[in-house]
Amino acid sequence: MLPYIAEFVGTMMLIILGDGVVANVTLNKSGMKGAGSIQITIAWGLAVMLPAFVFGAASGAHFNPALTIALAADGSLAWSLVPGYIIAQFAGAFLGAVIVWILFKDQFDATDDQGTKLGVFSCGPSIPNMPLNIFAEVVATFVLVFAIKGIPAEAPAGVSNLLVFGIIVSIGMSLGGLTGYALNPARDLGPRLAHAVLPISGKGSSNWGYGVVTLVGPIIGALIAVGLFAVIPW
Amino acid sequence: MLPYIAEFVGTMMLIILGDGVVANVTLNKSGMKGAGSIQITIAWGLAVMLPAFVFGAASGAHFNPALTIALAADGSLAWSLVPGYIIAQFAGAFLGAVIVWILFKDQFDATDDQGTKLGVFSCGPSIPNMPLNIFAEVVATFVLVFAIKGIPAEAPAGVSNLLVFGIIVSIGMSLGGLTGYALNPARDLGPRLAHAVLPISGKGSSNWGYGVVTLVGPIIGALIAVGLFAVIPW
Amino acid sequence: MLPYIAEFVGTMMLIILGDGVVANVTLNKSGMKGAGSIQITIAWGLAVMLPAFVFGAASGAHFNPALTIALAADGSLAWSLVPGYIIAQFAGAFLGAVIVWILFKDQFDATDDQGTKLGVFSCGPSIPNMPLNIFAEVVATFVLVFAIKGIPAEAPAGVSNLLVFGIIVSIGMSLGGLTGYALNPARDLGPRLAHAVLPISGKGSSNWGYGVVTLVGPIIGALIAVGLFAVIPW
Amino acid sequence: MLPYIAEFVGTMMLIILGDGVVANVTLNKSGMKGAGSIQITIAWGLAVMLPAFVFGAASGAHFNPALTIALAADGSLAWSLVPGYIIAQFAGAFLGAVIVWILFKDQFDATDDQGTKLGVFSCGPSIPNMPLNIFAEVVATFVLVFAIKGIPAEAPAGVSNLLVFGIIVSIGMSLGGLTGYALNPARDLGPRLAHAVLPISGKGSSNWGYGVVTLVGPIIGALIAVGLFAVIPW
Repeated sequence: MLPYIAEFVGTMMLIILGDGVVANVTLNKSGMKGAGSIQITIAWGLAVMLPAFVFGAASGAHFNPALTIALAADGSLAWSLVPGYIIAQFAGAFLGAVIVWILFKDQFDATDDQGTKLGVFSCGPSIPNMPLNIFAEVVATFVLVFAIKGIPAEAPAGVSNLLVFGIIVSIGMSLGGLTGYALNPARDLGPRLAHAVLPISGKGSSNWGYGVVTLVGPIIGALIAVGLFAVIPW
Repeated sequence: MLPYIAEFVGTMMLIILGDGVVANVTLNKSGMKGAGSIQITIAWGLAVMLPAFVFGAASGAHFNPALTIALAADGSLAWSLVPGYIIAQFAGAFLGAVIVWILFKDQFDATDDQGTKLGVFSCGPSIPNMPLNIFAEVVATFVLVFAIKGIPAEAPAGVSNLLVFGIIVSIGMSLGGLTGYALNPARDLGPRLAHAVLPISGKGSSNWGYGVVTLVGPIIGALIAVGLFAVIPW
Repeated sequence: MLPYIAEFVGTMMLIILGDGVVANVTLNKSGMKGAGSIQITIAWGLAVMLPAFVFGAASGAHFNPALTIALAADGSLAWSLVPGYIIAQFAGAFLGAVIVWILFKDQFDATDDQGTKLGVFSCGPSIPNMPLNIFAEVVATFVLVFAIKGIPAEAPAGVSNLLVFGIIVSIGMSLGGLTGYALNPARDLGPRLAHAVLPISGKGSSNWGYGVVTLVGPIIGALIAVGLFAVIPW
Repeated sequence: MLPYIAEFVGTMMLIILGDGVVANVTLNKSGMKGAGSIQITIAWGLAVMLPAFVFGAASGAHFNPALTIALAADGSLAWSLVPGYIIAQFAGAFLGAVIVWILFKDQFDATDDQGTKLGVFSCGPSIPNMPLNIFAEVVATFVLVFAIKGIPAEAPAGVSNLLVFGIIVSIGMSLGGLTGYALNPARDLGPRLAHAVLPISGKGSSNWGYGVVTLVGPIIGALIAVGLFAVIPW
């Protein structure tokens, strides 16, 4: 049970902190409104790092179905664990998004723009273009998974988590303006479901059509990463 | 005596640096006025990290009654030490706030807004709503204490302090716009007392009513964190 | 073959993330447009750090002909490897720039300013002045190579990569406003070639004349660094 | 000879990077003009960290007469080394400032404001008030030296340098708006001498009177720090 609990609680923490920063800097009347992409990208890096060091030993700290599938394809994780991991990840992401909504309930009520409200939960492209948006998620998730695979095995406990922080911040700062760097179907679709079912005042469409990008792109990118990693003659 | 000295001097450093950054970026005529939430959140992370690595071995570097109570509840700290720790924390926080006021005396005098002056000392909500404000402090302090408990025991000296820095910055960047993330009754109430008793020119109310939030929320959140940590079958 | 593969893939990652951040914060309609030099300098530091920890053991993670030449002059690298390293670095840099152009194709199309488009690929001076621009690249690359040489050999895996991150951010934040801190002929000239040959809508001159600065300055600075390092009586 | 060389070259690097960032973000026509205090404080942290890890084993990496004097008073450094350390520090700081002036020559020429030009070289108060300005330097340097003394001896190589980075950034972000956080007589007076003797176009007064603050404050703060550290019953 421990790995599933770890993936569930860890993904919940990831979304509380990750969707949290978007709420924190974009919703009206938040005390940090307007802080912009530097705060968003650093905070997303920390949103991954915190549950990663807490749950790394318990489950490997994936929090991401694309990573889970790629590591199974790679032989690093038993396929039998994959369904439970993915269910735990989606459930944790959904619950995390519900908590963010409760926390920022008054700020949501003070915000009119429907896109801003959806943006707290889920990703969207700066210019909609499905093939290029998918390509952006492929490249970004490739970098994520390839770099995670390349973390030196001799890095001490904690140091490897600091490198993971660096990976997430790097992808966000360098490529995040394209699609919001989902990198992770659970991170996008779990909160998107929360957006769809929660009684958010004045909300608009949950834009499910875009979910194709955040489902397909990360899985392809993650598989390419483990594939390339496997063929390099280390 | 050493643990009490450590908690006293450490909490004083915490508040000099933590209340210091708020003064530094919000008071008129400070050379860094307007730097905003990125500087505030990073600096608060460092304000915790510095005394944490200096005093970690001496007292555990709590600087926070909510953490002290939770670790006692948890069996990590003898209950007999708790009163002394808490007294040292409040005394250090009070003295730290006095030093910040002296340091920024001319900048306080150059600032008219009463809320800005109080904000240097203590926390306040972006939207007053006692139940939601308490909930925000519960969640934020849960993340704080749960993540601290989860720092890998094998992390080398110094590295664990870098992770603590990351925890504080994460909470601030992701949730800080709700209530100013007190996380810590001493951090809020010690400086609030300094605000009440110091002859600050043109000061307004010390808003003691809000102290309920920063007293109750952190203690509940910290207790939930050690409770959940204890039931996970690590 | 491994060192050449490492230099090729690593330099490609470097440019995807490094040219990526410039595109991400300067092109129209990017979701992070306007984030400025703090995001650019942090992200360039990470753009070096990620491939550095992945490929450090495989090739030494140079990604930079100036560093490669200096380490050969220094006796740290066999001269016979130099040509292959440099070819791999230029090829990786070129391919990385092509990928950035594809990723940001729609944003390039939405941007009119020719200097902004070229700036995604290559460096340029804030005030053109060839001797001073070369001097800036000499000093900046001196700091780069001297500091890399000075990383303590006992630093654990991963920690040394965090120091490399710090070196790149330092140079960018302190000197980057002069010439864009190429530090590296491949980083500048590989993407400049991509700018020249790609069918970028409305592009202007590739400003090859400036390539002298980014070719000569880094090599001189790197050689001075290894020279000074060698004469200090450690 | 090695310790003196280390203090000389290290302090030169410190000032190239430290005065460099101020030039980089404040002089007209610099490509990073306007980046503000977040970039300045992070870059100053790195400006200390780089020479600190390069020269830590060679000289202890003081680069600061106040630290040198305090560590001698403390018994950590032989008094016989103090004069040579201090001469090397001032000489390195002076030379570093000269290099910054050459690097940014065109940007200095493009800048009219005399205070901005002096600010690249040396510190100044946001509100002139000699007793409070000295007190600010006392407190800031106390934090610097007390925290340096408190770095855990078991921190691995490199990690301790990351903590030093954190100390400098903390002081700058939390207290830097008061006096520019000299912390160090050589850092302020060496470049101030360069300002006085260099043929800077349209320069104003070198404001030597303020040098009292940056000479006296850091030395007092450093001595209090080693004194308090010595009386705590670790």
